[in-house]
Amino acid sequence: MTDEIRTEDERWMDLALRLAASAQGQTSPNPLVGAVVVKDGQLIGSGAHLKAGTPHAEVHALDMAGDEAKGATLYVTLEPCDHYGKTPPCTEKTIQSGIVRVVIGSTDPDPRVSGGGIRRLREAGIHVSTGILSGPCHRLNEAYFHHRRTGFPFVTLKTAITLDGKTAAPTGDSQWVTGEEARIEVHRLRHQHDAVLVGAGTALADRPRLTVRLAGGGKQPLRLVVDSRLRMPVDSPLIDVKEGPTWVFTTDAADRKKEELLKERGLRVFRTGKGPRVDLTSMFGILGEEGIVSVLAESGGELNASLLREGWVNKVAFFIAPKILGGKESPTAVDGVGPERMSEALNLTDVSLSRVGEDFCLTGYPQRERRR
Amino acid sequence: MTDEIRTEDERWMDLALRLAASAQGQTSPNPLVGAVVVKDGQLIGSGAHLKAGTPHAEVHALDMAGDEAKGATLYVTLEPCDHYGKTPPCTEKTIQSGIVRVVIGSTDPDPRVSGGGIRRLREAGIHVSTGILSGPCHRLNEAYFHHRRTGFPFVTLKTAITLDGKTAAPTGDSQWVTGEEARIEVHRLRHQHDAVLVGAGTALADRPRLTVRLAGGGKQPLRLVVDSRLRMPVDSPLIDVKEGPTWVFTTDAADRKKEELLKERGLRVFRTGKGPRVDLTSMFGILGEEGIVSVLAESGGELNASLLREGWVNKVAFFIAPKILGGKESPTAVDGVGPERMSEALNLTDVSLSRVGEDFCLTGYPQRERRR
Repeated sequence: MTDEIRTEDERWMDLALRLAASAQGQTSPNPLVGAVVVKDGQLIGSGAHLKAGTPHAEVHALDMAGDEAKGATLYVTLEPCDHYGKTPPCTEKTIQSGIVRVVIGSTDPDPRVSGGGIRRLREAGIHVSTGILSGPCHRLNEAYFHHRRTGFPFVTLKTAITLDGKTAAPTGDSQWVTGEEARIEVHRLRHQHDAVLVGAGTALADRPRLTVRLAGGGKQPLRLVVDSRLRMPVDSPLIDVKEGPTWVFTTDAADRKKEELLKERGLRVFRTGKGPRVDLTSMFGILGEEGIVSVLAESGGELNASLLREGWVNKVAFFIAPKILGGKESPTAVDGVGPERMSEALNLTDVSLSRVGEDFCLTGYPQRERRR
Repeated sequence: MTDEIRTEDERWMDLALRLAASAQGQTSPNPLVGAVVVKDGQLIGSGAHLKAGTPHAEVHALDMAGDEAKGATLYVTLEPCDHYGKTPPCTEKTIQSGIVRVVIGSTDPDPRVSGGGIRRLREAGIHVSTGILSGPCHRLNEAYFHHRRTGFPFVTLKTAITLDGKTAAPTGDSQWVTGEEARIEVHRLRHQHDAVLVGAGTALADRPRLTVRLAGGGKQPLRLVVDSRLRMPVDSPLIDVKEGPTWVFTTDAADRKKEELLKERGLRVFRTGKGPRVDLTSMFGILGEEGIVSVLAESGGELNASLLREGWVNKVAFFIAPKILGGKESPTAVDGVGPERMSEALNLTDVSLSRVGEDFCLTGYPQRERRR
């Protein structure tokens, strides 16, 4: 979770972070928040925000501490709210509990909160420390913060490649690039995202279900298909809305009858202009307005190239299998029209790499983001 | 160097390994060997084999220990020789020195040594332990062992790719895929190999010098060009033999005049049959016979595909830059004609991954080796 734990404050904040992260996939459109209450070096309360509309993390942790909270320290990964939403403000609850110190991970970019929570606590005579593990606390809600700031969902481009960059054989066969652990990790990523996205090409070639199949269950994300001419076959598993809702983004050029057929099956269909391609700004605008905070793009090389070129990708997760496929005609993770110079490649920052079973996963953030 | 050091024996063998490895690039066609002499838990002698024709590691270490060697333990990364070559057998020197125990990393596949050294020492009443850090000791001389066993050089395929598997832009521009640290590491690899190899395509597109440019100097490897029709331009830096020798492998179809011209410039030219492609079996056979133990292939996607398909690659080293280039027409590290099924991909074993500056380096061994 965190890079390095050095102080007592960081140790408790790390616990709050782990609590928060454990609710991944449950809280959207709300952020992930964890809280612990500590007195005389001992844990006396803990909690996490579990689901929109239910109590905030601080409330659970303070309720658990009860009267013991008097004179204690509250650690919370995100600045407490100071407004009446679906629940009363956490600042009031904190003040009433007798907490004497509040340690905060990251501040809330929500204009209704931003700095107000900290101000209210300080006015009430509570000592407030900020910036403890702020990096990991911020990253935990990177999608939430991005959505609040821009109105667009946070897009993570996920792909699975061989060491030589291939996603499939020239025949389209791609089963399987990575091993079982990596495939389970992908299901975990789906569970953590509000929506998963593919293009019509992937829908045709791989016939994916894009469902969450985890041993312990999991949340089914919304399934999104970018399909400019509604080429998606009527027997595609994505059309079976019993497995989960599917939205299709297309253009004015698409067949009306096919649109009606999809709607009859329970899918939502959005036309995003004349075409020939789906207007991605329009699509992500709609998704942001519909409250979709995070999108996992599991698309193929052509759509990936468009998403990257237009600057829609906020994060990448490349699963790399230690195998070599070869083939000039084998599709790669990012096709399209490449730049003319190697120096025009898109650099990634905050790169981290981990082993996932027999495979590797490299994550990073594109340096060049679309101006929004 | 080693995975995990647990015992005293492993600690001393690890030191011997580090000594041996420090002479990388100096000893070919001899193996790398390191030795230390230890008495009462104290280091009393150390040495490494430095250059063919000069004393073996054990001799240096025993000379340093002098009379103190009596009753001491000798750690040596490779089974001591028991035959008269350019130097007298190390077994005799060890017996005469009064050493009471010899700890050996890996046994020598050279039929003149194999087990004989151990037998001779035991006959003389010396206690012999084998298999201490045998994995790393074996890997250190993997090229040497392979050459002795098969008669062919050990080939390491090195490439530098973007995260999405591209080696260059569609224009051929490839400066630079990786950062400075990775490029220095490539020069270190060249220094460690007997020869570096490229195809005519790379010679034309990149105009490489394939020289070793290290701050502290380094050994210039033999430069090899696979050039079926002798397309290599006469102003190629590879033709300047002042920088180092260059051998060109071609076919009967190549122009005689171009051959003469190259020979006049001091290059060696080998014809490997009718063509249309250079016969790789013939080429690697010649190289093996000429005493070339290790080859670093720095070739492009097409030659890489042939090398891999025909099973000539013993090890791969992929430098991966955390950047995305894209482009369906961008060359990749392994092009050629790919297999029809993902399940036919070539798996790598003993995979390890390290950070090299801002980049990563993944090494591994192809599981499917050519029957030789």
